[in-house]
Amino acid sequence: MTQEVKLEYNAKGMPFRRLGNTGLRVPIFSLGGWLTLGRTVKGDSATDIIKVAFENGINMIDTAELYAKGESEIAIGRSIKDLGLRRTDLIISTKLFWGLRRGPNDGGLSRKHIIEGTKEALERLQMDYVDVIFAHRPDPTIPMEEVVRAFNWVIEKGWAFYWGTSEWSAREIEEAFHVASKLNLIPPAAEQCEHHMFHRERPEKEYEPLYRKYDYGTTVFSGLAEGILTGKYNDGIPKDSRFGREPEHDEERASLASEEGQAKIKKVRELAVFAEKELNCKVSHLALAWLVIKPHTSTIILGASKPEQILDNLKALDVLPKLTPTVLAKIEEILATKPSSVVSCSAFA
Amino acid sequence: MTQEVKLEYNAKGMPFRRLGNTGLRVPIFSLGGWLTLGRTVKGDSATDIIKVAFENGINMIDTAELYAKGESEIAIGRSIKDLGLRRTDLIISTKLFWGLRRGPNDGGLSRKHIIEGTKEALERLQMDYVDVIFAHRPDPTIPMEEVVRAFNWVIEKGWAFYWGTSEWSAREIEEAFHVASKLNLIPPAAEQCEHHMFHRERPEKEYEPLYRKYDYGTTVFSGLAEGILTGKYNDGIPKDSRFGREPEHDEERASLASEEGQAKIKKVRELAVFAEKELNCKVSHLALAWLVIKPHTSTIILGASKPEQILDNLKALDVLPKLTPTVLAKIEEILATKPSSVVSCSAFA
Amino acid sequence: MTQEVKLEYNAKGMPFRRLGNTGLRVPIFSLGGWLTLGRTVKGDSATDIIKVAFENGINMIDTAELYAKGESEIAIGRSIKDLGLRRTDLIISTKLFWGLRRGPNDGGLSRKHIIEGTKEALERLQMDYVDVIFAHRPDPTIPMEEVVRAFNWVIEKGWAFYWGTSEWSAREIEEAFHVASKLNLIPPAAEQCEHHMFHRERPEKEYEPLYRKYDYGTTVFSGLAEGILTGKYNDGIPKDSRFGREPEHDEERASLASEEGQAKIKKVRELAVFAEKELNCKVSHLALAWLVIKPHTSTIILGASKPEQILDNLKALDVLPKLTPTVLAKIEEILATKPSSVVSCSAFA
Amino acid sequence: MTQEVKLEYNAKGMPFRRLGNTGLRVPIFSLGGWLTLGRTVKGDSATDIIKVAFENGINMIDTAELYAKGESEIAIGRSIKDLGLRRTDLIISTKLFWGLRRGPNDGGLSRKHIIEGTKEALERLQMDYVDVIFAHRPDPTIPMEEVVRAFNWVIEKGWAFYWGTSEWSAREIEEAFHVASKLNLIPPAAEQCEHHMFHRERPEKEYEPLYRKYDYGTTVFSGLAEGILTGKYNDGIPKDSRFGREPEHDEERASLASEEGQAKIKKVRELAVFAEKELNCKVSHLALAWLVIKPHTSTIILGASKPEQILDNLKALDVLPKLTPTVLAKIEEILATKPSSVVSCSAFA
Repeated sequence: MTQEVKLEYNAKGMPFRRLGNTGLRVPIFSLGGWLTLGRTVKGDSATDIIKVAFENGINMIDTAELYAKGESEIAIGRSIKDLGLRRTDLIISTKLFWGLRRGPNDGGLSRKHIIEGTKEALERLQMDYVDVIFAHRPDPTIPMEEVVRAFNWVIEKGWAFYWGTSEWSAREIEEAFHVASKLNLIPPAAEQCEHHMFHRERPEKEYEPLYRKYDYGTTVFSGLAEGILTGKYNDGIPKDSRFGREPEHDEERASLASEEGQAKIKKVRELAVFAEKELNCKVSHLALAWLVIKPHTSTIILGASKPEQILDNLKALDVLPKLTPTVLAKIEEILATKPSSVVSCSAFA
Repeated sequence: MTQEVKLEYNAKGMPFRRLGNTGLRVPIFSLGGWLTLGRTVKGDSATDIIKVAFENGINMIDTAELYAKGESEIAIGRSIKDLGLRRTDLIISTKLFWGLRRGPNDGGLSRKHIIEGTKEALERLQMDYVDVIFAHRPDPTIPMEEVVRAFNWVIEKGWAFYWGTSEWSAREIEEAFHVASKLNLIPPAAEQCEHHMFHRERPEKEYEPLYRKYDYGTTVFSGLAEGILTGKYNDGIPKDSRFGREPEHDEERASLASEEGQAKIKKVRELAVFAEKELNCKVSHLALAWLVIKPHTSTIILGASKPEQILDNLKALDVLPKLTPTVLAKIEEILATKPSSVVSCSAFA
Repeated sequence: MTQEVKLEYNAKGMPFRRLGNTGLRVPIFSLGGWLTLGRTVKGDSATDIIKVAFENGINMIDTAELYAKGESEIAIGRSIKDLGLRRTDLIISTKLFWGLRRGPNDGGLSRKHIIEGTKEALERLQMDYVDVIFAHRPDPTIPMEEVVRAFNWVIEKGWAFYWGTSEWSAREIEEAFHVASKLNLIPPAAEQCEHHMFHRERPEKEYEPLYRKYDYGTTVFSGLAEGILTGKYNDGIPKDSRFGREPEHDEERASLASEEGQAKIKKVRELAVFAEKELNCKVSHLALAWLVIKPHTSTIILGASKPEQILDNLKALDVLPKLTPTVLAKIEEILATKPSSVVSCSAFA
Repeated sequence: MTQEVKLEYNAKGMPFRRLGNTGLRVPIFSLGGWLTLGRTVKGDSATDIIKVAFENGINMIDTAELYAKGESEIAIGRSIKDLGLRRTDLIISTKLFWGLRRGPNDGGLSRKHIIEGTKEALERLQMDYVDVIFAHRPDPTIPMEEVVRAFNWVIEKGWAFYWGTSEWSAREIEEAFHVASKLNLIPPAAEQCEHHMFHRERPEKEYEPLYRKYDYGTTVFSGLAEGILTGKYNDGIPKDSRFGREPEHDEERASLASEEGQAKIKKVRELAVFAEKELNCKVSHLALAWLVIKPHTSTIILGASKPEQILDNLKALDVLPKLTPTVLAKIEEILATKPSSVVSCSAFA
């Protein structure tokens, strides 16, 4: 780990950071409800995952109204009740955009859906409030003023402490700050975005001014590139993997088989060798540790279909001290995915 | 339909638009409680109309404290309960101005009446909130600041998501935007106004700057000119029609009989022939379709004393593709009601 | 009545005006709880007075936490319950400043007392809200920002629709407008002040810029100069009158006996003759009618120890048409109390 | 007492002042929950102290979530219930910063902890609101905007009337005013700070501009320098004293034994002789009286492990008239702790 990045650790040895410019301390790894909780993992199995996560310092759970059509929120809420966890010890985030039904107002970022949707999400979660509520997507069809006013209303109502964006462009986030500033309302705190070794342009370049100006945070998903960075596709797509098993992943399968996909696999193989030989770790641990030390990563959301996966991912923390400038340079050399720098004014000096 | 107008359709084939500058999607046809629901149509009959409307994609119902002296709101609320409709799937609007009693504070747009009136309307509707609350008329006797503050309060309280105006002058709406902007409050979203082939000056000319500057919407009533555009008065006033039956319609009867009235009837006859011969539709379908393609029509409120009327009106949607520029020009030629253009600056160039 | 003053009348023949710059319509005569309700007049007797007042169009009742140490609010609340009056048909105002106990925070215009005091007043009144809450006195010991913020909070909470001042200087009211404007809060609506033929400097001259700039209203008390303008002290102080009966009125007795007091009595005698001979009315009716036509009198608060007093006072309305410019000039001649005019800019032209 | 300082007294003979720039009247002595209530003093003993304090005009109690790990708030709440004291007659303040558990969000001044922490404090106190909520420490890790917004939210919610700071630097308090002013929110009212004859730099010099500009108040703790100014350490550390008894006070014992500590003791001895001979009082009474007459001392928080200590401290009030300019000068001569003056602009004139 380079000297510039200092981490604080909670009592369970989990590093934490502030969520962007807020005072909320989020663990560097959080548990995501996407794809698993309430869908492939239910009941006691979901509770087991949450229990192990919590016992290991992962006290933040991210979900969305969309996930498993509301069942993710229901499963998480039920598990927390069953485990008897104290609400203040937890950080819960959910996301709104795609509603659960088919009406034209059942989704998007209208005041109607933000308010009705938050209320329904809280009912599914059996909670009085979430810590963070995200706009799961931007809604370019309606004025930003309505969006910012509605999220501010949810916060003033006491239904959330902070709000964030997900998959918004830098311009849209900038507009949200502009509107919040003009109307004296609360701006968003963080962006839930895809960030991994093969997806860097937006989180590392497009958002750079937001980090600099607003100390904006990111809650990262797909940190392992949907599994590619675990190396499990290095020798083809296993039958029992997500891409191998589920028919809706035809596109991903094709993508992996493409020239570009195979180029990625080649890099992952090279990286895996480097990780094992030089750093004595798995490539997945390296890929996660590499995200942890990005200073604007607030948290990395981990999916899990069994508790062991969580425990395995946590080994990434052991890699942190090994990420010296030389090691990082070697990684960049293998990846060759670093976004070109923004031309700064001084370039013309 | 000219190329400029694009419509989105909900799952039941009903086109919808945003309500003015808001994120609320309203169906292009909505159901109105005026004159019928809770008055001439009660109990199960009202429920039947709402059921058929909802099944055909009309998920918006407009009412007012004034309609049937509160009975309209009561009937609508009861029918929705009986039908077991989900609140979030519905858009409910009501309007305040004339109270139900005789006191000097029982009406108008004072803070007292807006707050007390909304509370009572919600009780009659058996709902926690309406989607839109309209000022049923302007109240020139009191400062605009009190009006805008009070509607904003109702929205902040969670009793409504949006507010609108009805029968306000463009200057009054402009003042509401001015005050809202000055005080950082929520401006109105739409105007409930009369708009049909024989009433165009205000909605098409006076409000034009509001459409342009604020993307203001209209929720149109009397789209069929109180029945004249159905052609039912083409051969005199039928005994069993609204004007023929009810003694309070002396004025409308006289108006129809006047020279001006007879000129209108003549145009309707001509239009009916054109509709049937050239477009293979009834004149009422043409009159409604002609409103649908006005880009600032958010919704057209349909009254109905039986479900079949709703179904018949929906046939207007089939006419939309037939409204070519040539057809529209022919309609204007027959009507000769198009407002003269506003003199624009370029006229002096 | 001069042509400039136009009055609207409610269904019971009672004229009403807007309360200052608000949309609240207040009857020109209102019922005051001071001195009588809950103190000398209790239980059914209080209810009778309120009943007769209400039946005659007086739908506004003014009280204060101070009056009869809270018993006034209790009596009014109980009577309204007993009469089964509808809350929305009533206008209730109360006033805060002197609390009911002896603590240093039990009074004044601190945020603590305004919030705690309003809550307790509502409990005594058995109501969810009052229409108007008055600051019974100014509180020069604390910043105006705290006062305006606290009354605004009470209004935002829904505990009152409007707030007002009582016995504030014009400068203090001006400061309240200044602070409200700066902080985007709701300014006061009206001043509860003493105004009668012998007390004119403040309401007619000091407040004049507030009427002009803010359309400020007045809710007038002591319109009959604590009884002097009824003529009942014209022949000395009757044993059964307020001044004659109660030991705490030594000061008023002395005042009446003074040279200045006797000069007033002389004028009342002269006015009484004029009223009876020229206008066919009692001097008290003339004195009240003279207040009604002041354009910034929102309401005149009448005290009553029996229903008949209310009914007698209402006869002042019959005098209104008789107040011609000539009559008004004659009254000014007798009184000789008209404040000298403010020097206006045009005086230097 | 010098002529400039005028005190008002409540009905029980206790002087009171406004809390900084607010309208809240706080008694010059208040009762503190630190170290004793809910910790060394529990149940009926705590109730006895509160009872005696209240009976002697001390109607303000200060506590904190931190004190006795929440047991202080619980004990105070229970005692007040047992005594049947009226909430409006009391002033209750509590403080947030260090939470009661170990999580990274269980403490600090994040919106999450301020809201969750206030809610939990109110539950422990069995109250709907406190009068003042203090930020027990500054939180330099998060933007001031979040802190000010969150305390403002607590006040708007009705959970507190005012908020304050504790152990903040003048710059941090200035920033809070800046942010509150920019966002139109409520600024803090007072600083809870250490102030006594041996700790003067911050309260008398650093905060001076805050007194001048904002009329900022102080709620003083350790007015007797943790007992040193009672003279009880004049002849060494008694076995049964706080420093003598408790092992965690090694540092204080060492400090007392140091050269600097012995110099303080020497001054206390000299002051004690002066107090007894010239003013006929104990040195502790003099030390407290000396704080009372500082014009920005809003209240001095007294700790007590038995009722008699309260009563003894109150004798300081008898010393007030004796604090003539000559006496004050003599005290300064003995102490030699007066902060050097700030260089004012006029120094360059």
